[in-house]
Amino acid sequence: MTYCLSMRLDDGLVFVSDTRTNAGVDNISSFRKLHVRHPAPDRVFVLQSAGNLATTQEVLDRIDRDLAIAASDPSHESLASVDHLFEAALYVGRLSTEVAAAHHDALSRIGADGTSTFLLGGQVGDGDADIFLVYPEGNYIRASEERPFLQIGETKYGKFILEFATRSDLDLVTAAKVGLGSMMSTTRANLSVGPPYDVGVYVNGSFTLQQTRLEPGSTILAELEDLWSRHLLRIVDELPTIDVSSVELEVE
Amino acid sequence: MTYCLSMRLDDGLVFVSDTRTNAGVDNISSFRKLHVRHPAPDRVFVLQSAGNLATTQEVLDRIDRDLAIAASDPSHESLASVDHLFEAALYVGRLSTEVAAAHHDALSRIGADGTSTFLLGGQVGDGDADIFLVYPEGNYIRASEERPFLQIGETKYGKFILEFATRSDLDLVTAAKVGLGSMMSTTRANLSVGPPYDVGVYVNGSFTLQQTRLEPGSTILAELEDLWSRHLLRIVDELPTIDVSSVELEVE
Repeated sequence: MTYCLSMRLDDGLVFVSDTRTNAGVDNISSFRKLHVRHPAPDRVFVLQSAGNLATTQEVLDRIDRDLAIAASDPSHESLASVDHLFEAALYVGRLSTEVAAAHHDALSRIGADGTSTFLLGGQVGDGDADIFLVYPEGNYIRASEERPFLQIGETKYGKFILEFATRSDLDLVTAAKVGLGSMMSTTRANLSVGPPYDVGVYVNGSFTLQQTRLEPGSTILAELEDLWSRHLLRIVDELPTIDVSSVELEVE
Repeated sequence: MTYCLSMRLDDGLVFVSDTRTNAGVDNISSFRKLHVRHPAPDRVFVLQSAGNLATTQEVLDRIDRDLAIAASDPSHESLASVDHLFEAALYVGRLSTEVAAAHHDALSRIGADGTSTFLLGGQVGDGDADIFLVYPEGNYIRASEERPFLQIGETKYGKFILEFATRSDLDLVTAAKVGLGSMMSTTRANLSVGPPYDVGVYVNGSFTLQQTRLEPGSTILAELEDLWSRHLLRIVDELPTIDVSSVELEVE
């Protein structure tokens, strides 16, 4: 599986992706799931992917082929030609459905699903930086105003922390820490999600993605794990005693 | 949906259940999902249920009918006749599959699923107190030694805390707090799980379940929510800064 999340803050965008892929439990590997395209100075696109790895890679290859064609033919649809970020979301959605459709018959014969889901973030020209979730069907949604995050893949395990702590006014580094906490709680509960983790931070108007990769065994992950353990135990300690014995005694 | 969990500790057992049920988002109600049967001084059974509410209720009614029959005919199979807790798990599994099968045709015509999953905990005679997860197919599993908890229903949102904090040597009240934390993180992330919560604590050899119900707006739930918020923010604060700008800068 996969777990990727993105956040839209007042100051910019945050992206966190794991790198684990598996085709069965005996075929586990590590692939990058956070991809950046910067086809012109006035635009940057960050793509995160969950689902069929082959479909994801072919979508990326088609994106790059379209960019190469567009270099000599600017009328060719590509990430360089879109005027708005939502048009890029629709473009990625179209590629994704095309690739999945091209392999659908062969894959369905072995019971496999060739679809992929994408998170697309970035900024185009004077438009606001934003994040989109692009469904396998090719349509998209934005994040809500109240809970400005999106997730794909194994989304349930790490949702709790995002619900609790994600607010638009978080600074970008704090938001990245919240995202890592969500990632770590997912990894803890589900073997199919794992480090290294890719973290991307985008400052509004910069048209440049700042990135780092956190390797397994890195200091910051060890520290995060330690912090969680300590605070969880403290929460349990500080919670007033639940008085079960005196409240109600039911024996039927 | 539903979220129920049980834990097997050195000192006894802990049970936490929510009470929310829904048949569509416009038909949300509250039903007890933690049930106790104490058919003889040497045995107690705690049943938690997830899945089809009608199936669950009919299983409970059949359990009680069998107990009534067994009162005059001790050879009749019932919770009073089993010699081991695993036999009770198989008995509940058999009732569950029978009830689901009886309604299968009618339910499948409207695309509904009539199955239920149960957690069964308790103690019989000189046997150890234990917890079982009874599948809709009628078979069962015990909790593992390393992670001595079981979950049914919406299990993913609250798994993280259980993975982190559940150890056999927790005292029962601390374990109940951990269980409530897991319940609260599920409720926070998923509307279909909600208070009031039923909490049961069983001390080994007592053959009596101590219970309480935590109502929405209760002091302890408010305190728990507050503790989580504070500690989550502290974890985020205490985490060393992730230096994205200096580590790697990738623009493609």
